[in-house]
Amino acid sequence: MGSALRVHVLGPSWSFSHEAALKLFEKAEISLNRTISEVFRSVASDEQSVGVVPIENSLQGPVNETVDGLAEYEQIFVKEEGVMKVNLVLAKNPKSEKLTHIASNPYALSQASSFIAKNKFEVISVPSTSQAAEVAARESEVGAICSELAARHYGLEIVARHVEDRESYTRFFVLAHSDSPIGAKKSTLIMNLEHKPGALFRALEAFAKNDVNLLMIYSRPLRSSRWEYYFYLDFEGSRIEHKVNKALEELTRVTQRVLVKGSYSSKNINELFKT
Amino acid sequence: MGSALRVHVLGPSWSFSHEAALKLFEKAEISLNRTISEVFRSVASDEQSVGVVPIENSLQGPVNETVDGLAEYEQIFVKEEGVMKVNLVLAKNPKSEKLTHIASNPYALSQASSFIAKNKFEVISVPSTSQAAEVAARESEVGAICSELAARHYGLEIVARHVEDRESYTRFFVLAHSDSPIGAKKSTLIMNLEHKPGALFRALEAFAKNDVNLLMIYSRPLRSSRWEYYFYLDFEGSRIEHKVNKALEELTRVTQRVLVKGSYSSKNINELFKT
Repeated sequence: MGSALRVHVLGPSWSFSHEAALKLFEKAEISLNRTISEVFRSVASDEQSVGVVPIENSLQGPVNETVDGLAEYEQIFVKEEGVMKVNLVLAKNPKSEKLTHIASNPYALSQASSFIAKNKFEVISVPSTSQAAEVAARESEVGAICSELAARHYGLEIVARHVEDRESYTRFFVLAHSDSPIGAKKSTLIMNLEHKPGALFRALEAFAKNDVNLLMIYSRPLRSSRWEYYFYLDFEGSRIEHKVNKALEELTRVTQRVLVKGSYSSKNINELFKT
Repeated sequence: MGSALRVHVLGPSWSFSHEAALKLFEKAEISLNRTISEVFRSVASDEQSVGVVPIENSLQGPVNETVDGLAEYEQIFVKEEGVMKVNLVLAKNPKSEKLTHIASNPYALSQASSFIAKNKFEVISVPSTSQAAEVAARESEVGAICSELAARHYGLEIVARHVEDRESYTRFFVLAHSDSPIGAKKSTLIMNLEHKPGALFRALEAFAKNDVNLLMIYSRPLRSSRWEYYFYLDFEGSRIEHKVNKALEELTRVTQRVLVKGSYSSKNINELFKT
């Protein structure tokens, strides 16, 4: 029997990335990293490993550190996508009598702002939802807004479910040294434009002419020159389909650099087995 | 003599936004706000006032809260742009003998990461660079990475200048109830696309055909529907120029919504009088 696949994820333990990785890979040796950049470095230095990182949340938008990592690490590709519904719970120490404070990370706090205001809690900002659960386990007057998984692992009791103002979904990418183009419905690329007026228009023309649908386009600053940008694109289809291939060929002719970051399938993580 | 102009800025005192506002408005009654959204609300409710908010940093990219505010508040326009070079200093309490820790906000800490690593400082993350200066004034073993202005106002001594790894610039917008199209060289708009393939391509065609140069395009998630986006655009020229006007007319025909957020002039804040 071979050894388990090593999966690098953004920690700490019981973060949403950790949960996504546990659901996407039933048998895995999970390795927790402190930053998304560290996940990219870890995957780059071990060809047999994969990484799991968030790429976009449906309310917050893309995750800049992941977009920048895809642009920087030319040898790393997207092998698979997982989409997970974000379920936030309010959890407390089972011995707690009354909550006066709520701990969570800034994103989760803003996503649950109506719930917090209605209940008149004081707010404590910590770097992650799982660290919030850890604080709640220690301090009985502090509740945590975190995932159900984190609440369970820190021995907390769930007081309320779905405390978020609106439902949101997070897309995760499985990073690897190759992609999975066969049967793939979606692809991702990074492109740098020529420094000419109309450059973006001509780039998008390559897609429109070949009937390839863009799903998402996002710009990030080029660190090398001020007020210039590179672009991240998601589009429909696999790079091995004829029309996609033709669009990419034309795109290469009108841009400075195109990095096809992979064609991949998408999984609904919530429908996978329970962790 | 009339009373001074009320200027709403993102606080706390001696933040970069506060500094930008002091340099852009020699005589002003500054009102500090806790969030960018609060600046928008304050300006919206007082037609005589203006606001100063960061819109983009040349290394970090656009400021999502400002982009979302421009899309939400239809009655607020961009009246002027100010560009400021970000100069970070290391400052300490004059009585301090040895620094062991460095406090700053996460962005400034990441911008000065080489300097911090070389000097082997422990890091303390606080919400703003001016709060870092306040901590340094109180705790003699803690240095602050902050602006020169914040250092001066908290009575700190400057130990090193230009501690950032790379130079960066921040663009600020002056928000008001009208724009300044006469003689303006730049404009900003928000647009929502039709839900059809090629919609972005057709929108950019309106600019390309009329020879209007795009400076920047950025997408943000629509809170109303998952994995759909609205767009923020900066382009050259004023809305009262013939070709810009023609491009905007054509754009309106191929999009769901166009909000012209104003045509405005740009100032180099570093060349304005000293605060």
